[in-house]
Formats: sequence, C-alpha cells, structure tokens
Amino acid sequence: MKKMFYKYFPKIPILENVDIICGKANIKSRSRLDLAIIIFNNYANVAYVTTKSKTFAANIKWLKANKSISKVKVLMVNSGNANAYTGEQGYLNLKSLIKFLSYGFNCKNKEVIISSTGVIGEQLPINNIISTLNKFAENSIEKKNMNWESFARSIMTTDTFPKGIYKKTKIGNKEVKLIGIAKGSGMIAPDMATMLGYIFTDADLSSKLLQELLIEVNEKSFNSITVDSDMSTNDMVCFFSTRKILNKVQTIKDKILDKFKKDLQWVATELAKKIVCDGEGATKIIEVNVLGAKSYSDAKNVALSIANSPLVKTAIAGEDANWGRIIMAIGKSKAKLEQNNISLKFGRNIVLNKGKLKKNYNEKPISEYLKKNEIRIEVDLNYGKFFSKVWTCDLTKKYIEINADYRS
Amino acid sequence: MKKMFYKYFPKIPILENVDIICGKANIKSRSRLDLAIIIFNNYANVAYVTTKSKTFAANIKWLKANKSISKVKVLMVNSGNANAYTGEQGYLNLKSLIKFLSYGFNCKNKEVIISSTGVIGEQLPINNIISTLNKFAENSIEKKNMNWESFARSIMTTDTFPKGIYKKTKIGNKEVKLIGIAKGSGMIAPDMATMLGYIFTDADLSSKLLQELLIEVNEKSFNSITVDSDMSTNDMVCFFSTRKILNKVQTIKDKILDKFKKDLQWVATELAKKIVCDGEGATKIIEVNVLGAKSYSDAKNVALSIANSPLVKTAIAGEDANWGRIIMAIGKSKAKLEQNNISLKFGRNIVLNKGKLKKNYNEKPISEYLKKNEIRIEVDLNYGKFFSKVWTCDLTKKYIEINADYRS
Repeated sequence: MKKMFYKYFPKIPILENVDIICGKANIKSRSRLDLAIIIFNNYANVAYVTTKSKTFAANIKWLKANKSISKVKVLMVNSGNANAYTGEQGYLNLKSLIKFLSYGFNCKNKEVIISSTGVIGEQLPINNIISTLNKFAENSIEKKNMNWESFARSIMTTDTFPKGIYKKTKIGNKEVKLIGIAKGSGMIAPDMATMLGYIFTDADLSSKLLQELLIEVNEKSFNSITVDSDMSTNDMVCFFSTRKILNKVQTIKDKILDKFKKDLQWVATELAKKIVCDGEGATKIIEVNVLGAKSYSDAKNVALSIANSPLVKTAIAGEDANWGRIIMAIGKSKAKLEQNNISLKFGRNIVLNKGKLKKNYNEKPISEYLKKNEIRIEVDLNYGKFFSKVWTCDLTKKYIEINADYRS
Repeated sequence: MKKMFYKYFPKIPILENVDIICGKANIKSRSRLDLAIIIFNNYANVAYVTTKSKTFAANIKWLKANKSISKVKVLMVNSGNANAYTGEQGYLNLKSLIKFLSYGFNCKNKEVIISSTGVIGEQLPINNIISTLNKFAENSIEKKNMNWESFARSIMTTDTFPKGIYKKTKIGNKEVKLIGIAKGSGMIAPDMATMLGYIFTDADLSSKLLQELLIEVNEKSFNSITVDSDMSTNDMVCFFSTRKILNKVQTIKDKILDKFKKDLQWVATELAKKIVCDGEGATKIIEVNVLGAKSYSDAKNVALSIANSPLVKTAIAGEDANWGRIIMAIGKSKAKLEQNNISLKFGRNIVLNKGKLKKNYNEKPISEYLKKNEIRIEVDLNYGKFFSKVWTCDLTKKYIEINADYRS
C-alpha cells in the first residue's frame, strides 16, 4: 500500500483511572511485546461479542461459562499463543491466570477478562507469563510500554502495524472519549477471526447498553470484513465504559446518544478497515457495495461472495479489469437475483448497465483505476431495496509466503 | 508434483461410429487447439448435469430451455471463450452455431450440444468458429487431431495437461467401454466449476438411466472436489451412450449393472482427481476424509471447510504440520460437533485422539509425511456414523501468478 493512511497510529490520550502495562514474556519466538494488562482502577462496565467457532479457545469457554460478566477490573491480553485446542491443561492454565490476577488486583475472578491470540494447539508458557506479571506488579516497567500504542503492539501476531483510533465525541453536551485498539491480519472473516478488538469510553454506560451498542456497530464493521474467509477460535470484541462522565441516557434509542452512536460506528468501522488493510500480503483495500438486493442478507451474501472469491482478489492484485470474475462470484452466491438486471461499476467507471455492457466499453480507464490502493466495486442487483458494504483486500503471493511458514 | 501419475494420458480406443475432429479457430490468444466436435454417427443417448450458478452461460441457458434433450448427434466444445454474460448477442451466436451444426449434420437443433469454457463477458468470434467448422466438414484435418487426446487438449484453458481416463468394464457378460475426458483447473468448486466433463460408453443405456447414473456418481466425484471454492458459469458433465452393445438392464438397481456402476464411479472420481492435481499452482493433492459425523451433509461440510481453507492449504504448501489450522477449519464449519471428541491423523500419523494430543506427540514424522505429493487428512468427529471424502490441492504462489494475469 503506497498511501499509508490506515497505517497511521494516532495520538491517543490515556483514560483517567486506567493503567496500561505491556511487556515481553517470551511467548512470541522473537523478543517482542507479547503481554499486556489494562487495569481499570475504578472498574469498568463491559460487554463483548465472541467467535462463533465450534473449536473456541479456553478463554472463550470461560466467557461462555460465566455469562454474567458485566464489570471488570483487569483485562489481560497475550499474543503468540492462542490457548486454543489445549484441552483440560489449557483451561487450568487460564483459570490459574485468572486467580493470579484477581488475587493481585483484589477483585473477583469474574472481574478479569483474558484474551489470547497466536498459534493453536500449544500450551501457554504459564511460568513466563506469571513471572512477567510479577514484574508488572513491581512497577519496573519503562514508561514507553505504558501507552495505547504499546498495548496495540503487544497484541500483534502477523500484523505489520499497530492499530488504534481515537475520537472525541459527545453525549448531550458532555465531551467523552472513544478509543479503539485492534489486531488481526490472517484468519479474518465475518463472525470474527483472529481478530481482537477493544473499544474504551469514559462515558458512563451500563453493560446492557454497551452490549446493545456493540451488537449494533459490530454487524457493519468487524462482521463486514474478510481477508481469507477463515474464522478463528479466539475472536472477540470488548467494549468498556470507565463510567467517568455521567449522562442521562436511559435506552439505546435516546436522541442524546445519536452523535455517540455515529462516532462509535465510525471507530469500529475504521478499526475493521485497518485490519483489512493489514490483511496478510495485502496491497489494496477493496470496498464492495451491493445495492438493490431483495433482503439485507442477500446483499451481504453477494458482497461476501465477491469479497471472498480468490479469483476476484487475485485479479485485483494483478490490476486486471477482469469483470467476468465478479459476475462469476455473484452467480455463485445464494442470493435471489436475475442476471440480466445486474449493473456494475469500478469506482465511477460503469461496466454493466442492467446486464448490458456499457456502449463503447473501454477497459483502459478501469485498468488505470485499479492501480489505486483503494478500490471500490459497486454492484446493483436492481432486484430490491437492500444494501450491504463489506471490505476485503487483494490476494497476493505474499499471503502465501506468510502462511506457508508462519510458525518457523 | 514430482510423481506424475495423474498427468499420464492413457491410450484410449476410438468408439465405433464416433468421429472426433479438433482444430484451431483462433479463439485462444496463442495458436492452440480450441475447437472440437464429436459426431455420433448413429446418435447417442445423453444425460447431463450443469452449474448451479445464477450467472450461467448462453449454452446452459439453451439446455435449461430445452429440457427434453436426450439424444444427440453432435457435441461441440470450444475453449478460450465461455460465451457467458454475453446477453442477447451471445445467445444469438449460440443459436446460429446450433443451426449451422444441425444443418451440416442433418439433425434437429435439439440434437446438438455445445459447451464453452474460457473468459467471461466477451462475444464468441463466431466467424472464426464457422470457418473452422467448414474446414472440419471438408475433412482436411490431420489425423493427429482426430483422437481423444486432441479432444482433451482442445478443451483446455489454464490446464497444464490433458485429462483422460479409460476403463474396460462389463454389463453382464458383455464387455463395454467407459471413456472420460475433462478439463478444469481454476474456478473449481463443488456444484461444478470451470469444469467440463464428458463420459462416453458404448453400452446401450437410455437417457433416463444415464441421468440416474450420472447424478449418483457425480456427488462423490465432481461434486467432491475444490480448488478455490469459486463456481463457474459454464460447468457441465455429460454422459453419452452410443447404444452399440446391447444389454438387458431395466433399472439402475439391476444387479448386472453393479460392476459397471463401480467402474463408472472410478472413472468419474479419477477424472475429478486429475482436475484437482492440475489445480492452479498445485504441488500436492490433498484427500480429506471426515468420519463420524451426525449426517452426510455435516461430514461433507467439515470436509469442504478444511479443503477450502486458505490457511490449511498454504500450511500444506509449506509442508508445515500446523494442525491447529485444521481445528480452526473444523470449528468454522456449520456441522454439529463436540470439539473434545475430534481425532486427527495425517496419513497414518496420529495427532489427536478424541480431543487429546497424542502422548509424546512428535511433529517430525508428520513434517516428513508432508513432503509427499499425495496427502491424506483424516478427521473423526466421533459424533455419528456418516462419512465424506473430498479432494483439494495446496495453495501456492503460482496460483496467484496464474490468476493475477490470466488474460494478458
């Protein structure tokens, strides 16, 4: 990607009463940040969504078993090891970490959340983690490892850049902060992937409200991206409220939440797009818009069919205006459609108009357009009123390189 | 692929009363065989299955519109152009070819079958095709272009080798022939792909019987392979009977058909495997066996989830025993399962036994095993009685290379 807009890590202020500590626990093979904790000194309300994978990791099992988690004192994240498919031992390791943290921070077990990301099927190096957490407690951590950017770095696996976003917003006339941090590069698909996302706000929102808001924004952000159609065992997105800035919000429909909701959607969407931009081997981000579908699920189905098609993604990597592959991908979707109704554009360049090739169709401006880093595909099925937008990246040799020897 | 067993084109005898003519009509960019006709001088009974794509090609539209085709005099196949998404003009072109052939061979329009494969969205070079067909009629074709291997070559697009198979079999005590020819390399996925398959027999079978047999063998052959999960607009498999060798078969359940059915399944499966072996950029063929599923569709769902996972396919390309990715792929399937029941083997090497890593698990023999060209993955869900076997290939940089600039 030549223009690195998405790779930029913005300046993000620290939240009051929130401490960040990051360090190296030798979980990753090379010496890199791989362990982080966030301490909510005055507790935070929390809501989360997790992977739909049936081979979910130990920490997801814990969350499924403890459904009533709504308040949290500590978040711990490690990268380099997913603690997934690690059986009883893996679950015991998770529980001992939770006990260790709840004891250390003087809270309940159910006030600790743990996320893991990395290789599947290997046991956590629990001793390394515990001794690093002890160092955290001794407060011998360098200042530079105590900010949002180090947190974002600590949770990276095959990511090539840390992902963060910040938005000042308002509830009523009170200014509140929205901070988003995420990681993810491979195994990115709808319904979560090797994706971890954390959104923090100082606005005082109940865990019930956080949950409703998260589900709402999640569908059109993290659940609308795909890198390789693979779904991970560990994905989760958490939404924390430090409860600092009070408000009078009663329900999600309160008008005074409107600006906050819009900005929250922006934060989630921009984070999601950063993940796609860092899609393994990606050189382009592709926005797929599907209009005129019979239902929302039909629209999304067609959009994902295009966004997941290796033939579409390699054509775009090759900057090849091979629009026939988009037609193929539309054809294989499960949506109701009539092939002679389809209109198709690359950016502003019309290819098809209701099933007919544009008069004097000329490939050149499209080939020119495909040289950009951000590609927009628009399909109008002319078959209904529903719309979906998803993001993906191109599929390049680098993807193969990264994935043919990730562990070595 | 080092050992080229699947690339071998066997000696296939000509069928009595069947003529094959192949030539170059300049449909493909370079001068290669790209047009073939097969003439059934005494007619053939025929049955076929076609793509489920909603953006199906002109010839598929013709077949859908003429459901009663059961007898055929001429089969024409062209490669280099799919005549898909070519609108009214494309359909007119198809119909004029059908008229030309039915006139030339003195048969009805409905006794002509046309298949096309190649680029989507461009009009057929109809004049080139007609003038080449005229040359065919003048009989000025070289002998070397009048056999099964040239037919197999004529229908190739990104294929790297022609695909044919031959089996002598029996119905009762009468010897009959089974001949299979196919093409396909990219856009290979269940429910057909850029796949064309033709099976010929001299056994006298009604078109109804051919249809029943074809549907039966198709599910566990052509519908059980995947290269890249993309589905084509043009796929079809046809089954022809020249009606030469008479028999007393009444129904598909007749015992005297047993050997023929078994051999027909073998022909279809071997053809399908040849396609996977020629999967774009493939260096390995991967057989995925899923046992112990709650239903057949659950078994196939898990098998395809593994076989379509880019992360599994790149790991195998890298000869990396990263079994966690198989667990991930099982987890993202739609099947009912319990993660702690899963057993997993690479070839004969056990990795997991009912959810537990094998005692003293050692990766080395598996890494050794993964150096082979033919890899077998066995997953036992231990959750039911159903079984599915599918084939795929590894995903390599070469796939990207081929597909990033297919048309140039």
